[in-house]
Amino acid sequence: MAYALVLLSGGLDSYTTAALAMRQGFELYALTIFYHQRHHVEVEAAGKIACKLKVKKHLVLNLDILKAIGNSALTDAIAVPENRTDEQISAEIPVTYVPARNTIFLSYALAWAEVIGARDIFIGVNAVDYSGYPDCRPEFIEAFERMANLGTKAGVSNKPFTIRTPLIHLTKCEIIRQGYSAGCDYSLTVSCYQPDGAGRACGKCDSCCLRKKGFLEACIPDPTIYQK
Amino acid sequence: MAYALVLLSGGLDSYTTAALAMRQGFELYALTIFYHQRHHVEVEAAGKIACKLKVKKHLVLNLDILKAIGNSALTDAIAVPENRTDEQISAEIPVTYVPARNTIFLSYALAWAEVIGARDIFIGVNAVDYSGYPDCRPEFIEAFERMANLGTKAGVSNKPFTIRTPLIHLTKCEIIRQGYSAGCDYSLTVSCYQPDGAGRACGKCDSCCLRKKGFLEACIPDPTIYQK
Repeated sequence: MAYALVLLSGGLDSYTTAALAMRQGFELYALTIFYHQRHHVEVEAAGKIACKLKVKKHLVLNLDILKAIGNSALTDAIAVPENRTDEQISAEIPVTYVPARNTIFLSYALAWAEVIGARDIFIGVNAVDYSGYPDCRPEFIEAFERMANLGTKAGVSNKPFTIRTPLIHLTKCEIIRQGYSAGCDYSLTVSCYQPDGAGRACGKCDSCCLRKKGFLEACIPDPTIYQK
Repeated sequence: MAYALVLLSGGLDSYTTAALAMRQGFELYALTIFYHQRHHVEVEAAGKIACKLKVKKHLVLNLDILKAIGNSALTDAIAVPENRTDEQISAEIPVTYVPARNTIFLSYALAWAEVIGARDIFIGVNAVDYSGYPDCRPEFIEAFERMANLGTKAGVSNKPFTIRTPLIHLTKCEIIRQGYSAGCDYSLTVSCYQPDGAGRACGKCDSCCLRKKGFLEACIPDPTIYQK
C-alpha cells in the first residue's frame, strides 16, 4: 500500500481531503501544525480526526515563526472580519491572510514525506469558496510541486512528489457532499477563526459564513455548535 | 534605504553573503534557524556576526521538524563522512543532506520578508565547491522564487521577491577572497559539521575539507581553530 502525507488542520476541508485520499487506497501520515493561531482548538480536532481515520502516524508540530513575525488577524491582535457577504469575502486578500503559510506547511510536509518515502502530499486548498488567499490557487500548487522536485534528493532521483489537491475546484457544498459520502463526521471539525474556549463557532467570520452556506446548499444538517 | 533579509547560519558563506548585501547598500534583517543540528555552535557564531554587521534585527528561531523526522547525519545519530576527496564529495548526495532544508529556511525568510516589506532575500548557497545538495542549485532557487511570487500577497500585488545568491557560481577560494575584501572576520564563523564543545573544527568533514582548501587556494591565512 502506498503512503501519502496529508496536512490535517482540524477543519472541514483537510478532513475531507484525508478521507478522499484513504478512499483512493493510500495509507496516511497526518501532519498538524500549531502556529499559535487563535483557533487552536482545531489542533485538538485534528487529533480526533486522525484517530477516527486510523492514520499510521499523526505528528503535531509547533511553528513559532508566524507568531514571532505577526501581521495576521489569525496570529495577532488584529480583529477578524465578521458577517461579510460572498462578494466582500472574495473582493480582496483579507487580514486573515498569514504570510507564506501554505509555503511553510508544504515545506514541512515535503521534508517528512521524503523521510517516510511518501510520494504524494495531500492538502485541502480550495480556490472556489475561499478567502482569496494566493497560496490556495492551482498555479501556486503547481509551482510548489516543481520547486519540490528540484530541491530534494528524492525529486532529483526520479522519485518525484505530487501535491494533490482534490478539493481545489469544488464549491464548499460539493466538498461537504463528497466528504459526507466518504463517511466524514463533521462534528469533529472546527472551521471558525475565533471559537470560544469550549470550541463553539462564532458563526460570523469568513470561514463560518462559507461553512454555513456549504451545509445549507448541500442540504446536509450542519453539526456545528455555535455560540449563543 | 532598501531592506533585505539574509539567512545567516553562522558559517563562512552566509557571512560573506551578508557582507556583500550590505556593500550593495541594503539594510539587513538576519534570520538564523536552530534546527537541532550537531553543529549548533554556529548559532552562537551567527549572533556574533549579526552584531559585527550591525544588522537592523536578528531573529533566531527554533525549528523542531528536522529533528522530529530525523534521517540526516546533521540532526541524527548517523556518522558524518570524513577525509573525503573533492571527487568523493561531489559524487553523490551525502548523508549530511537534510530533507527540504533550504525550502523550509527560504519559506521562513519569505514570511518574514513579506512582513517587514523586504523584497530581496539573500542566501549563501553555492553550486561549485559544495556537497551536492539539490537545494543549492540555481534551478531550485529560480523555482522557489517563482513559487514565492505566486503564493504571497506581496508577490501577487506586483511587489515581487527576488532570491539573491551572490555566491552561487563562485569557488570557495573566490568566496573567501570577496568576503575578505568586504571586511569579513572569518574567525567568527563555524563551518564544521561536528565541532567540539569549545567550537573547534574537526578538520575532516566535507565542510571542513572545502573550507581548508578555499583558504589555501585564496592564499589567505585560515583563522579556523582545529581540534588537536
